[in-house]
Amino acid sequence: MRPNDRLADQIRPIKMTRHYTAYAEGSVLVEFGNTKVLCNATVEENVPRWLKGQGKGWVTAEYGMLPRSTHSRMRREASSGKQGGRTLEIQRLIARSLRAVVDLEAMGEMMITVDCDVIQADGGTRTASISGASVAMADAFETLVKSGKLKHNPMKGHVAAVSVGILGQDILCDLEYVEDSAADTDMNVVMTEDGRMIEVQGTAEGEPFSRQELNVLLDVAEKGIADIVKAQKLALEN
Amino acid sequence: MRPNDRLADQIRPIKMTRHYTAYAEGSVLVEFGNTKVLCNATVEENVPRWLKGQGKGWVTAEYGMLPRSTHSRMRREASSGKQGGRTLEIQRLIARSLRAVVDLEAMGEMMITVDCDVIQADGGTRTASISGASVAMADAFETLVKSGKLKHNPMKGHVAAVSVGILGQDILCDLEYVEDSAADTDMNVVMTEDGRMIEVQGTAEGEPFSRQELNVLLDVAEKGIADIVKAQKLALEN
Amino acid sequence: MRPNDRLADQIRPIKMTRHYTAYAEGSVLVEFGNTKVLCNATVEENVPRWLKGQGKGWVTAEYGMLPRSTHSRMRREASSGKQGGRTLEIQRLIARSLRAVVDLEAMGEMMITVDCDVIQADGGTRTASISGASVAMADAFETLVKSGKLKHNPMKGHVAAVSVGILGQDILCDLEYVEDSAADTDMNVVMTEDGRMIEVQGTAEGEPFSRQELNVLLDVAEKGIADIVKAQKLALEN
Amino acid sequence: MRPNDRLADQIRPIKMTRHYTAYAEGSVLVEFGNTKVLCNATVEENVPRWLKGQGKGWVTAEYGMLPRSTHSRMRREASSGKQGGRTLEIQRLIARSLRAVVDLEAMGEMMITVDCDVIQADGGTRTASISGASVAMADAFETLVKSGKLKHNPMKGHVAAVSVGILGQDILCDLEYVEDSAADTDMNVVMTEDGRMIEVQGTAEGEPFSRQELNVLLDVAEKGIADIVKAQKLALEN
Amino acid sequence: MRPNDRLADQIRPIKMTRHYTAYAEGSVLVEFGNTKVLCNATVEENVPRWLKGQGKGWVTAEYGMLPRSTHSRMRREASSGKQGGRTLEIQRLIARSLRAVVDLEAMGEMMITVDCDVIQADGGTRTASISGASVAMADAFETLVKSGKLKHNPMKGHVAAVSVGILGQDILCDLEYVEDSAADTDMNVVMTEDGRMIEVQGTAEGEPFSRQELNVLLDVAEKGIADIVKAQKLALEN
Amino acid sequence: MRPNDRLADQIRPIKMTRHYTAYAEGSVLVEFGNTKVLCNATVEENVPRWLKGQGKGWVTAEYGMLPRSTHSRMRREASSGKQGGRTLEIQRLIARSLRAVVDLEAMGEMMITVDCDVIQADGGTRTASISGASVAMADAFETLVKSGKLKHNPMKGHVAAVSVGILGQDILCDLEYVEDSAADTDMNVVMTEDGRMIEVQGTAEGEPFSRQELNVLLDVAEKGIADIVKAQKLALEN
Repeated sequence: MRPNDRLADQIRPIKMTRHYTAYAEGSVLVEFGNTKVLCNATVEENVPRWLKGQGKGWVTAEYGMLPRSTHSRMRREASSGKQGGRTLEIQRLIARSLRAVVDLEAMGEMMITVDCDVIQADGGTRTASISGASVAMADAFETLVKSGKLKHNPMKGHVAAVSVGILGQDILCDLEYVEDSAADTDMNVVMTEDGRMIEVQGTAEGEPFSRQELNVLLDVAEKGIADIVKAQKLALEN
Repeated sequence: MRPNDRLADQIRPIKMTRHYTAYAEGSVLVEFGNTKVLCNATVEENVPRWLKGQGKGWVTAEYGMLPRSTHSRMRREASSGKQGGRTLEIQRLIARSLRAVVDLEAMGEMMITVDCDVIQADGGTRTASISGASVAMADAFETLVKSGKLKHNPMKGHVAAVSVGILGQDILCDLEYVEDSAADTDMNVVMTEDGRMIEVQGTAEGEPFSRQELNVLLDVAEKGIADIVKAQKLALEN
Repeated sequence: MRPNDRLADQIRPIKMTRHYTAYAEGSVLVEFGNTKVLCNATVEENVPRWLKGQGKGWVTAEYGMLPRSTHSRMRREASSGKQGGRTLEIQRLIARSLRAVVDLEAMGEMMITVDCDVIQADGGTRTASISGASVAMADAFETLVKSGKLKHNPMKGHVAAVSVGILGQDILCDLEYVEDSAADTDMNVVMTEDGRMIEVQGTAEGEPFSRQELNVLLDVAEKGIADIVKAQKLALEN
Repeated sequence: MRPNDRLADQIRPIKMTRHYTAYAEGSVLVEFGNTKVLCNATVEENVPRWLKGQGKGWVTAEYGMLPRSTHSRMRREASSGKQGGRTLEIQRLIARSLRAVVDLEAMGEMMITVDCDVIQADGGTRTASISGASVAMADAFETLVKSGKLKHNPMKGHVAAVSVGILGQDILCDLEYVEDSAADTDMNVVMTEDGRMIEVQGTAEGEPFSRQELNVLLDVAEKGIADIVKAQKLALEN
Repeated sequence: MRPNDRLADQIRPIKMTRHYTAYAEGSVLVEFGNTKVLCNATVEENVPRWLKGQGKGWVTAEYGMLPRSTHSRMRREASSGKQGGRTLEIQRLIARSLRAVVDLEAMGEMMITVDCDVIQADGGTRTASISGASVAMADAFETLVKSGKLKHNPMKGHVAAVSVGILGQDILCDLEYVEDSAADTDMNVVMTEDGRMIEVQGTAEGEPFSRQELNVLLDVAEKGIADIVKAQKLALEN
Repeated sequence: MRPNDRLADQIRPIKMTRHYTAYAEGSVLVEFGNTKVLCNATVEENVPRWLKGQGKGWVTAEYGMLPRSTHSRMRREASSGKQGGRTLEIQRLIARSLRAVVDLEAMGEMMITVDCDVIQADGGTRTASISGASVAMADAFETLVKSGKLKHNPMKGHVAAVSVGILGQDILCDLEYVEDSAADTDMNVVMTEDGRMIEVQGTAEGEPFSRQELNVLLDVAEKGIADIVKAQKLALEN
């Protein structure tokens, strides 16, 4: 039995609070159960140097964890003098996922940076970041449309992500920390709102996994992502 | 006239939300108007190497700003590879202020680290950090008393802080960003709950200031700090 | 038509030169066509500090590219002062893949570090690194068995990896650089020699991919990996 | 009784040696008793990038301690790879203090950097740095006036600084190291030559201090600074 | 008796493999016995910022050791975050040596960077690097001549280097690792092909050395370098 | 004609001021004409970790230049975050030179660190550093002998150094800056007081140099070093 009597393929309660902070062009506090990530989207009217003069835009992301977002305190990356490998890996994943649903040509020479800062970590912070960042980015683009700087919102649809895993005999959706740390296989799946895949990253922490298990993991992920997309759309309607 | 019709010696509305996050031994979201700082206190049952074997405890602090806590995005310090001079200066100030109200001998060989992370910045983040950290630290010490690891709470009282400044002809308490950036003189005052001074840091950004002006600044600070101490006590009673 | 008339599901010619350097306990130059990676395995008779006293061993990996392994010169990471995100991501992947086929308990308190240094890069350097490192690690373990420091080789079997991708309408195995840089989807698959999966990392660079495409990608990867495992076994027999 | 029979409100013997080194536009070795700081002012005919095109000048400062300026050797900051928080705090203070007495508009697009390097440290290095740097800066501006690059010296007057403190029952001026390390309260005061305040930084290391004590501290500081300004003027007359 | 029955003034067998990698404009694997260094020369059609607009070219070099090029594994410099003093010293020496035989004016505003990466280290890696880099640079210049970007090869001749040393009573040429680590005096000599000196760097590790010993060291070095120049010319003829 | 009518083989006026600062166990301000270097020797009663338990001592050195020791201001290395290659090269040279005249076994497990900080640079700072550091180290060892921590001074004699060079047709001793920057060949020679060589580092900046020129360079260096040794002995007699 999962914590809080969750079913194997059931995601945690999702809450998306838009306009959580006052200055960012898009600001969403996303909660998956006890995992809480603040996603702030910033618009800048220029692009990185290597992209200048091509008429295209860019979307990037940064990720960080507050030192005491976790059960025991982690060292602050600003103090240790560099971002760790895990942090760099996650922020590259978030950025790729966001760019996959944006028409960069249609953006013009603008840049959106989405900062995903983990306030509280109970598993699935990278997938929550992607799911929340998609909404924050949508708000940022709407700001640009309202101010006349863009004619249309260049997003092709939402992007959402979920973690799935194999824990003993069970294939579970949206693992929380106690499940994640005990799982044999952990997989992060990022999809467009129409159910196509942007990223699939599966890792066998213990036993290798089979094609058949992979298929069930993806079935479960598809269902979970469909629920997350619903939550994204609901949040943007309010 | 100040924004929101504030009087010259009036502080902004204060809100202190305890237990804001789930894992820290003390966790307070402190708000002074639009300035919001999350203060998480962590207890560790050891001390820095240079203090080992002396039977004394230690209190330290770290400070950071989320990249988009500000009107325009700041570069993430973890990404630029070091904490800037302003950050180091502020976290040293917070730590000294907290230690001033703790009996370190009575703590035994324990350490408390208070992380002050600015969620939204509208002026006065360092003084809000001190005022909120005092409450988070109090909660952390209570945790240790309840678990039997300490017999008594080693805090000698609260510590609170406020910024005051000279803007044109006016001497103002608890400056918000638009006031702070236009002020001629900016002063941060840290006091114990019984009204004695722990730190006084006044800087003339424009014209130098006189002894008489300094006296009015301190009068105004004393009044503001008395109000903050009331808010701290109220928060801890709930 | 692919370069050198390769079939869509055909891997490049593989060459594995053991004992390529003289001092490492295992040293393999692995070549996949024009991609050449030197994999040196080092044995140390201690473990990282966090693992001490548990009676277990550890396997780790580092990855680097010579500055002119690529078409245009890349900046030397030692000179720029840090390893980039891509490097950290790849060396974490290599290390996880190697650990997945080793019985760490059976190793005792020993550590193997495999350095994968790219001499020439023509696509697929991370998968070539994994495939070559498996052989270098096998040689290192044999050294320990021969010297009596281990009773049995603690490897459970080989690990091999290949990249697959979607380029236009085609699903290709073992992409070389010109294919890789034009592909819509790029997937790295790491498997045990018995065909179970250790890592699956698929990324849509252009269009998202479907479940059906994912299935063909994995079919192609399985076939390619079977050929690589044959090459690994052949190399170790000589 | 203080060392060398100093009175409570008496500063140490001051010595200011101008033209101490040969190449800097202003070069002053300032001595307060055993504290010796070399202040070298450099003129550059450009400004930091963020100030370009505004027709204004800039004054900045850097601070360092020779490793064996202190009783026991300190680690060289160049070797440890960064300037510590204390160093950054001090050099920011020196720079603000110097800018407070310069008409930046009247400078035109020029920059003065004053390097304050501590040759021997016996307390009060930051205040000695400010007091000496004011003279070195004056010499540098005179160089510019003599060469015709500036019409008038843009300094509005001298800036001088002193430390004061509470040691037991006594309120002392210009603390040397043995006094400073035992003091309950330490305050650095920076004033213009006409007696107005630029910076006031008081810290209770032990017991908090009262308004009344603060007033006596400032009285003592005013008197000390008046003596330092006399020494500055005398040095420049020679 | 030296290893492999070498005579005191005899260099190790030299092998120079040109075009060792495919992309560099010059690529030479140089072997002195068991010492193997890969020298890759890169042409870039611009110069460092400080040289722009002067119509001159530049030649620079970087040096690195693969972590397991040595008997026991060295820490990877990219991972430790900086190049050590020895590395910086060596790459400055290589670069100076190469520039000494190039007419920088005749190059025009081009830059050549030679990366010397040690594959296997058995003593004399810096001198092998210089000797191999000279050939790689020659190939790079030939590429520029063939493509019409330069009219003539601006090299004035070859540069070659050898280490010599005093081991007990013997003065030896081209020391290998076991000799080098036991030597009292170690000297690196860099010469032009016509026998004039570019660099002489002699260090007494144990006993100081006399003028007479210095003279014999240089005699032996001259002879060794003449043999190396022959090998360079032979390699370029093939 | 050389500046100040110096003869070709004549060194500049030397001044060695012992006890220049108050806290270091040895403190010498050494001046060669306008070149001024402060050499502070620190005694510590422990050794680096890699040497512990061997009963031997260690001597090391650090080198730095004050930012405005030079004609135009150099960037402070503490601020740029690392010591440059030139700095590292020089401090390694100083340390090797000092160790060459110390019986490390006789020192016991003690360490001497000599900090050489350049106050004013007019050529020859590294050789002045060595010559002054030898005297500072002698004073530090005398301190240990006087306090009974060592029975005998473990120095085998003095070490001194000088730069020599070829400028046009002239071979000059102890080059000052204007000579050094115009010289074709620059050579630093480090010798024991009995005239044997510890280091010889000659570099052709322009034309390569011949064996005959090298011999004259060394003749001139021997003479200059004999004069420096006299100055060292004289300083220690006072």
